[in-house]
Order: sequence, then C-alpha cells, then structure tokens
Amino acid sequence: MRRLAVLASGQGTNFEALAHAGRRGELGGRIAVLVSDRADAPALERARRLEIEAIHLPPGRFRTRLEDEAPWVEALRAREIDTVLLAGFMRRLHAPFLAAFRDRVLNIHPSLLPAFPGLEAIRHALDHGVRVTGCTVHLVDDALDEGPILAQSAVEVRDGDTLADLEARIHAAEHRLYPWAVRRFLTEPWTREGRRLVFGAAAAAVAR
Amino acid sequence: MRRLAVLASGQGTNFEALAHAGRRGELGGRIAVLVSDRADAPALERARRLEIEAIHLPPGRFRTRLEDEAPWVEALRAREIDTVLLAGFMRRLHAPFLAAFRDRVLNIHPSLLPAFPGLEAIRHALDHGVRVTGCTVHLVDDALDEGPILAQSAVEVRDGDTLADLEARIHAAEHRLYPWAVRRFLTEPWTREGRRLVFGAAAAAVAR
Repeated sequence: MRRLAVLASGQGTNFEALAHAGRRGELGGRIAVLVSDRADAPALERARRLEIEAIHLPPGRFRTRLEDEAPWVEALRAREIDTVLLAGFMRRLHAPFLAAFRDRVLNIHPSLLPAFPGLEAIRHALDHGVRVTGCTVHLVDDALDEGPILAQSAVEVRDGDTLADLEARIHAAEHRLYPWAVRRFLTEPWTREGRRLVFGAAAAAVAR
Repeated sequence: MRRLAVLASGQGTNFEALAHAGRRGELGGRIAVLVSDRADAPALERARRLEIEAIHLPPGRFRTRLEDEAPWVEALRAREIDTVLLAGFMRRLHAPFLAAFRDRVLNIHPSLLPAFPGLEAIRHALDHGVRVTGCTVHLVDDALDEGPILAQSAVEVRDGDTLADLEARIHAAEHRLYPWAVRRFLTEPWTREGRRLVFGAAAAAVAR
C-alpha cells in the first residue's frame, strides 16, 4: 500500500475527503501524515481527530531559501512517502523538493486550468463572467499551476451566484475529484505525450 | 419578430442549427439572411436549401481597410437586421461595424473562454492536455474572443480522443448551445456588471 502525505495550510477539507477515501480503500494508497506550515492550521486538528499523524514544520524562509525545504524532504522520506498531495498548501515548492519527488507531487486548483491560475481563482472566474468553471488536479512542476493535468471537473456558474455560492459548489466538486484523480494516478498506467497525460490501454501500449 | 443575420465563411452547420431552432419558434427571432465572405462557402447552398436568403459579399481588404465593412453594414440595415450571429465567420469585425450593431453581435467559439482564444482552439486544448473543454457564446467587442460571455457548455475530453473525436463532440455541443444562448439573449432582460452579464430577475431589478 503506497504511503501518501498531504500538505495543507488551512482548513484541510480536501485532506479529510482524501483521508475518508483512503479508509474506504478508494484511494489506491493510505494517508500516512498531514504536514502543515502553519501551527494554527485547522487541518492539524482535523488529522488528529482522524488519528492520522499531524506535524507542523516551520517553513523557514521557504519562499526564497531553497535549503529550507530540506527538512520537509527529510520528514517525508523518513516516513517512506511515495506521493505528496498538496491541498490548500500556500507555499510554492522549488526544484530540490520537486526533484526528490519527481512526478510524485499532485495539487488541486479551483479553476479549469489553464484559465485562472494563481490566487483567488474563483473570484477571478466570477468577475470574468464565465458560465462554466471547475477544478483541476495536476502534477506540480516548477511553474505555478502549469504542470500536466490529471483530471478536471466542470462546475456551472448560475444566475445570481455570489462568491460564497460558487466557492461552495467548487469545493464540493474538489472533494469528489481529488480522491478519484489520486486513485487513477496510483493505480492505472499512464504516460506523457507532450503536455498530455495519457491513461489506460493507450498508455500501457506505449510503456510496453 | 426580430430579424437575425448569420455571417459564415464555411460549412454553416451552426447556421443550420440556428435556422431549425428559428423555424421551431425556439430562437426568439427569425433568420432573415445568411451572408458569406466566400462565394464557395457551403453555408450559402445550405441557406438556399432552407429557403433563406443567401448573399455573398466580397470582403474587399476587410482585414485592413475599415471602409470595406460599409457595404456589409448597409446590406444588414437594408434588411432591418436586429442582431448579427457569427458562425464560423473567419474575419475580424472592426469598430465601424460593431458601432452599427452595438451589443448586437454574437459569436460562438470552440473553447471555454478565456482559455484557448484564437484559431485552432480545439487542437490547442487537446495538446495542452485539458480534461474539460467546451464552447462559448459571447458578445463581440473590439478584442478578439474577449467580449462578455453569454453562455458556455462543458465537453469532456476522453482517454484516447483524437482531434476529430473532440471536434465532433464540441460541434454537437455548439449546435445545442448557440440557439439556447440566442433565445436567452433576445427574450430575457440582461445587464452588465463589469465584465459579467447578469440575466433574469436580478437584471430586471437593476434595469428598473
């Protein structure tokens, strides 16, 4: 059973959805640890309640000093982590971390990438006037919100939607999409064709 | 009954979907004329078969000389056209035309804008590796593919999709979305809030 880590800075609702899917055997792996860069992140308490190891690692000067990522890599390696799942993790990972978990770091983003990358994606989509938005699970590479796409789910914008209405609908879609995408990533053969991730029989044929 | 014009450069399949919806009374208006910039556009023959006036207007140096748009405006005004529907029209309209039909020119684009504007949108979406794409009906303003969005429809990208597979699914979605969006535009109150088009009761309240 593959061992997974979730990195979260906030509430941890996606973490909880992933943990429940893992318990039901629907994740293709088991969440071994929740790591947060914020000592006061509600995600930590949520992990303790779910009886999953919860650790706070001070970020140091994470944004600018790459060596500050080393304790994070060590903590994950010590726990034999196979795949890292970002879930509302508000820091950008750099080359040393990503090299240690090459093609093994996933993220979820609240828009249909490549539309609306970056912060406040839901607000930007609403202000832009789109009628369809959604969420995206992607591999993390050096460029923010630009790694190859694993899965996406569409969410309708309805007449009169407030930001809170749309946020609630997108978060509900995230909680369904992320476990499904992780399971697929961990259990099905896949390969890359340019930017495109190809799953299933076509990927198995290429891999042979 | 509002009189509509469709401008098309190619096959005219969206034109035909609009024409059928108009005949069924589902468009909020009637297609009075099909205009093409290409004498050999199959859309012209399609219009004749549907017993809708079909005219070819030479584009002149449409791309660079704004005065070459004047015969187009005159032809539409002579037919008392209320709203202009672009459907695979491969030329860009400029300020004089758009001022003559201010907020009365609609277009359909084969992506979920703002993602993948411009030509070959379906190929670009497939190459980017998105798992959800779709189509967009929007008001046309000066900037290419950037006017306020009226309606969007999501289309799933499936494992192993070829370009032809995805094109067929998006075109089918266009043929459903465009008549629906035109009817809504012509029959429901709407207003703008920034970039966002607001329909229905909320718009009626603002208009009062």
